Amino acid sequence: MSSLATPSPVPATDASCCSLTARELTAAEAESAAFGFKALSDPTRLRLLSQVAAQDCATVCACDLGATLGISQPTVSHHMKKLVEAGLVTREQRGRWAHYAVVPEAFALLREVIRVG
Amino acid sequence: MSSLATPSPVPATDASCCSLTARELTAAEAESAAFGFKALSDPTRLRLLSQVAAQDCATVCACDLGATLGISQPTVSHHMKKLVEAGLVTREQRGRWAHYAVVPEAFALLREVIRVG
Repeated sequence: MSSLATPSPVPATDASCCSLTARELTAAEAESAAFGFKALSDPTRLRLLSQVAAQDCATVCACDLGATLGISQPTVSHHMKKLVEAGLVTREQRGRWAHYAVVPEAFALLREVIRVG
Repeated sequence: MSSLATPSPVPATDASCCSLTARELTAAEAESAAFGFKALSDPTRLRLLSQVAAQDCATVCACDLGATLGISQPTVSHHMKKLVEAGLVTREQRGRWAHYAVVPEAFALLREVIRVG
């Protein structure tokens, strides 16, 4: 089993050692980010998300999700709905099946909030 | 009010558009990451964390946390305990007060899990 890729080096402009962001978060920023992290706080949801994201920006049919995790389509729908509500994933209905794709910008914002080290 | 710093550019080695990680997450990885994200899913906790992280790796006394957020010391302790349990922050008791510092490596792992875009 391969390990996760090595984290990207800290940019040269990021001189401080542990700054979480350039400054303390405002209430609105914290609300928004916390909502996103909440959507990521379930392991099954994270694994579904990684299945979608592994498709390199292509949309993924719900019919292709969940089988390897041993979960039902209603469970897939439940988890994907949470990701859509958090703005992390888009959903498009095509005939019988929903199709999903990640929203890279939303993840960039969350990454920025936890840019420590 | 300044906005959050611009997200770091995607490294040149990261050729795929939307890969969440180099591959799909395993159950163990998803469990671990979900636990970390759960600790970040509360806005007050995120703001406390940003107060600690803003100190550039220095430890921060609990006595200096929370005042600007209008929260009591028991509430500070409650939130900080969740961050410590998730391995995101260390806690050291010095006399009457706990002192906290962020664990950069833990955040690097979470960032890696949401490296989309």
